[in-house]
Amino acid sequence: MMAKLNTSTPSGFPEFSPAEQRVIQHWKKTIAEIFEANGFSMLETPLVERAENFEAKGGNAKEIYVLDRLRREEAVDQDKDIRAIRFDHTVPLALYVARHFNEIAFPFRRSVIGPVMRGERAQKGRFRQFDQCDIDVIGSEKLSLANDAQMVAIIAQIFEKLMPEQKFVIRINNRKILTGFFAAFNADPAEFKKLLEFLDNLEKNPNAKLEGHPIEFQERILEFVETTGTPDEILDTLKAFSDHPEFIEGLEELTKVVKLLRTMKVPDNQWLIDLRIARGLDYYTGTVYETNLVGYENLGSVCSGGRYDDLAKVFMGKNLPGVGISIGLTRSLWQLFEDKLIDTKRVNNSDVIILSRDNSLLASSLQLGKELRSKGISVEVYMEDKKIQKQFDYAKKMGIPCHIIVGENDTQVECDNLEFKMQIENLI
Amino acid sequence: MMAKLNTSTPSGFPEFSPAEQRVIQHWKKTIAEIFEANGFSMLETPLVERAENFEAKGGNAKEIYVLDRLRREEAVDQDKDIRAIRFDHTVPLALYVARHFNEIAFPFRRSVIGPVMRGERAQKGRFRQFDQCDIDVIGSEKLSLANDAQMVAIIAQIFEKLMPEQKFVIRINNRKILTGFFAAFNADPAEFKKLLEFLDNLEKNPNAKLEGHPIEFQERILEFVETTGTPDEILDTLKAFSDHPEFIEGLEELTKVVKLLRTMKVPDNQWLIDLRIARGLDYYTGTVYETNLVGYENLGSVCSGGRYDDLAKVFMGKNLPGVGISIGLTRSLWQLFEDKLIDTKRVNNSDVIILSRDNSLLASSLQLGKELRSKGISVEVYMEDKKIQKQFDYAKKMGIPCHIIVGENDTQVECDNLEFKMQIENLI
Repeated sequence: MMAKLNTSTPSGFPEFSPAEQRVIQHWKKTIAEIFEANGFSMLETPLVERAENFEAKGGNAKEIYVLDRLRREEAVDQDKDIRAIRFDHTVPLALYVARHFNEIAFPFRRSVIGPVMRGERAQKGRFRQFDQCDIDVIGSEKLSLANDAQMVAIIAQIFEKLMPEQKFVIRINNRKILTGFFAAFNADPAEFKKLLEFLDNLEKNPNAKLEGHPIEFQERILEFVETTGTPDEILDTLKAFSDHPEFIEGLEELTKVVKLLRTMKVPDNQWLIDLRIARGLDYYTGTVYETNLVGYENLGSVCSGGRYDDLAKVFMGKNLPGVGISIGLTRSLWQLFEDKLIDTKRVNNSDVIILSRDNSLLASSLQLGKELRSKGISVEVYMEDKKIQKQFDYAKKMGIPCHIIVGENDTQVECDNLEFKMQIENLI
Repeated sequence: MMAKLNTSTPSGFPEFSPAEQRVIQHWKKTIAEIFEANGFSMLETPLVERAENFEAKGGNAKEIYVLDRLRREEAVDQDKDIRAIRFDHTVPLALYVARHFNEIAFPFRRSVIGPVMRGERAQKGRFRQFDQCDIDVIGSEKLSLANDAQMVAIIAQIFEKLMPEQKFVIRINNRKILTGFFAAFNADPAEFKKLLEFLDNLEKNPNAKLEGHPIEFQERILEFVETTGTPDEILDTLKAFSDHPEFIEGLEELTKVVKLLRTMKVPDNQWLIDLRIARGLDYYTGTVYETNLVGYENLGSVCSGGRYDDLAKVFMGKNLPGVGISIGLTRSLWQLFEDKLIDTKRVNNSDVIILSRDNSLLASSLQLGKELRSKGISVEVYMEDKKIQKQFDYAKKMGIPCHIIVGENDTQVECDNLEFKMQIENLI
């Protein structure tokens, strides 16, 4: 006798219901369209690269998945290299650029939407496979700050479109303002990473203590990052704060980005300057972003990113500047589903389903479906030979809001929406 | 000193150029839209499942990739199960259905577009990671033959849209006609698989010999499968061939499918009955399909599939009928690129690029871009502070067919297409 198979999903590999997947697909499609409308081309790299390259670019070996065979056969598998699954889209992008530097048209505007894997401890809301939606612009030498501003414009377009009823805010800062501030207080550059991480954790742990520094220094930092006001007020306040060259450079960059945001007509209520935004990762060097849904700050940032100087140096010995953002699609949507912030009543995008009182009428139903489709209506035809009640059950389970019932002598229309019902009745 | 990193892609994991990826994305989007228009909902399952389930459903253990960690830490990784990467979309679908049988609305119309992995010997045109585009309809009990016909209609819609200038033909058969024919000649049912594989290989090896059977039997088979004519002529000829119940059943099914194709108005020149189509895989039980591009038969079938009775029996002890098709996107497109059958001149979908004679004019360029975009034109704004010649080089490398050059006192338009040029000039 065969042992019973365990058919459940492996821990940390999430599976969404058809109705949730409809939302996931809608988000992916909308995000992809907005990326494209802003001049970014989708570029998919392999799921797998040589493990050595992931480690060289800061991957956590304990979390990196590598490929093996279920059973090995020497003759078939001659690969000596350890092949690892990507844990983000940035390292594969760096590898792509290193491989194809001479063919690429710079600035290189690249988008990607797809899965990455991290062997983290699986826990509620943390997954081992999840979709990330990224864009990056990579320059061959310098890269205009207009790209930094465009990222904000794109985030705004995306959340305006995805959640038109939901307020969101893009919080902008510049790393050089923070590191310049630390330097102005003679902090050791070796400490900067720790200081940035301290800031990064402030929102989660407002009472955290900064170890190894006098309490006065912590107080000065907190006072500084709590500077509030309109963007112009903050920029104005900062002018008097320090004349450290790095601080000044950061301030000038942020001032230019703010000016460009206005040129690009990003609405004022969608973004602000927040000096607490540090982004923990150590590769950011200029503009940084986080995005919050107002009233749902507990979700964390739904879209983050920033400017970096050194995309592919470890692979090609050349500094390439870039700026990018990433939407953690799986994690954000999982939380939005949990909190019932997103409607998941409908399973597919059919506006209408055609049911038949008798399966001998299927030919008419198919013909009617074809006609309505040619008029731009999304129609499903129920084709099985089942009693009408079973057909209604199906339509209900799918959440399709309008039913056409084809009978021998008449055709009925039942819709939640009366206006749509009249539109359909006029068409059939 | 650090050893130089090998940044090349691992063998068998393909990487396409930005221009090729533009075509890949266009195909994926078009295929997804047609799947959806026909009532199929995208349902993505995890890339990873328990290896035991893949083996139970006929996976080749030598080709199945499993996950390990680059470095293990017991505290983090407590999974005892072997997790394997999917090698097709059918087994994950069977697992999904087994897991969610009671929640699913049947007939369950599911689509998926995404990567699968097989650890085959890497060779020209054969990849270890490749995208498959699948749809399947799964019934809880019986499943109407209208679904079998709909598959043909969908294949036709897809290739009509993707390659409007290219003739294609969908070749249809029914497995029961073949097995009924074998049975009518008293062939041992244990031999059917071998006989079907013999047929399946005929096109590649027209001189192959059928081992272990008298030459007369091979001749009878060949004579039978070479029956040609219009669908109606073939159906008519077959009526007189055998009265074996399985043969009759297959013939009746095929006759109904043909009738439904006409109801669905699939053009006559896009499909035919071809008795040589056997589909090697042993799970098909009824209708089977292959699709060829006329004049490029060497590509093999670009879309294949068929009817099966037993999707998830090994997982849930219940027979569920289904019918599905699969497009081997990566393999087909790779070959079409190789044969230069597809234009890959353009890198992105921008119709227009706005260049600036001086970077101080960037604000005007951005504004103009926004205006044109609001009129439905796909526009890219060149934002870097570079000499105009560099900007032209970029536009050329990207293959963008129309350039707007913003100057201090004038704005010029240069387009390949004069009509489009006039349209743009009227808008600016």
